[in-house]
Amino acid sequence: MMDDLSPAVLTPLADAPVEAPIEAAAPESLDPETFAAPSGHELATQLVAKLCHDFISPAGAIMSGLDLLEDPSAQDMKQEALNLISTSAKKLVTLVYFARVAYGAATTSEAFSGKELNKILSDVFGSMRAELDFDIPADTLFPKPAARALVNLGLIAGNSLPTGGRAHIETRRDDDTIYFTAEATGPRARLKPEAIEGLSGKPLSDGLQGQWIQPHWLWSVVKEAGGTLDFLAEPEHLTFNIKMPL
Amino acid sequence: MMDDLSPAVLTPLADAPVEAPIEAAAPESLDPETFAAPSGHELATQLVAKLCHDFISPAGAIMSGLDLLEDPSAQDMKQEALNLISTSAKKLVTLVYFARVAYGAATTSEAFSGKELNKILSDVFGSMRAELDFDIPADTLFPKPAARALVNLGLIAGNSLPTGGRAHIETRRDDDTIYFTAEATGPRARLKPEAIEGLSGKPLSDGLQGQWIQPHWLWSVVKEAGGTLDFLAEPEHLTFNIKMPL
Repeated sequence: MMDDLSPAVLTPLADAPVEAPIEAAAPESLDPETFAAPSGHELATQLVAKLCHDFISPAGAIMSGLDLLEDPSAQDMKQEALNLISTSAKKLVTLVYFARVAYGAATTSEAFSGKELNKILSDVFGSMRAELDFDIPADTLFPKPAARALVNLGLIAGNSLPTGGRAHIETRRDDDTIYFTAEATGPRARLKPEAIEGLSGKPLSDGLQGQWIQPHWLWSVVKEAGGTLDFLAEPEHLTFNIKMPL
Repeated sequence: MMDDLSPAVLTPLADAPVEAPIEAAAPESLDPETFAAPSGHELATQLVAKLCHDFISPAGAIMSGLDLLEDPSAQDMKQEALNLISTSAKKLVTLVYFARVAYGAATTSEAFSGKELNKILSDVFGSMRAELDFDIPADTLFPKPAARALVNLGLIAGNSLPTGGRAHIETRRDDDTIYFTAEATGPRARLKPEAIEGLSGKPLSDGLQGQWIQPHWLWSVVKEAGGTLDFLAEPEHLTFNIKMPL
């Protein structure tokens, strides 16, 4: 898949190691040095803020469902209330399991199978419009950093298809390197400016931090592992390539 | 309060700025330089792992409650099931609100009142054995870093009283400095070794990372703000002091 991409049409970052110097696009008020290695504090707080934002919606929906259950004037809504509680609880559990692999630490010996990662991503896609095409054998084993990159890549591919479409994910490896390719195909396939900055290792110049942090996190996971990440935007089609040492 | 403490009985770190060099107690396999400024990546993953661990228990309890509700052989348990769902959902919302202030980013202009912080901590203490004695006026305003230190301090004080007791928290400020003091008084008041290492700015030498990360986070919050943190362990009585520039 990666070999099919013509370098000429790739984004400027294509084939460049993610450790490449931050480009001049960064606002002058941001110190590129500071940014390139943001304080552990800042990265952690931004990630937790995003998680809290994600969690509060289903948690609040469960509370609303419980209120509805106890409302004497809404006795005909009991089943709807239970459905709301059930749907929201499942969404919450899905989010926690996703977060554990995508953002959380685990013992270094931990590895994930294709089957487990497919399940985690499929559950997340359950509340998205895009369809997941997880083209990876169930018994393939992924070490933690690769698993983390894979689920974050899948989320970005799904999020880039707001009106639906198909997110195809595949992997291949040679002796000491693992490659991931995600293709997002759909009528409104697009990356928000925040996501482009995040994926490119650039600071957020404008827009919403909550839209920037997860793409930035993927970039940071790949960079931490000594790998590279590039992406290509064509009409109705996005391609993402990740290369990481095994 | 702080002035009453005799330096002679304080821990070795008392009155020392938290930026003090890491002591030789660190295992040799850990590079103190690396540790003193852990990668943003590592701090973030450890914090998220702790959050996921905290969240999964009530989220799982909600799922169990729903299963029980739908079980035809447990029709006499409906009220218990609803109670379990309700209690767990409240716990989850409490955790998310706590996490947002304690660990999450927010706009720098955000400030919190004593009333808000009292509510956040009181809710967390709702599932602990210790009682909270929040001795801070409701209308006192705290900038974000101070608010973050305060709720983390409160959690540590509560967690150090596993069989119950009283966690008293107070604050004072002068021109450009804010001081927090927490006193944990109870029959089994104690700090786990992991918590002592975390609060002292030392790496985890042994034990559970999940017990270390939150105390370490408090240390890191205080350090990031240019403040100092010390604590004193006496029988049935722990005292924590924080000093931060305003």
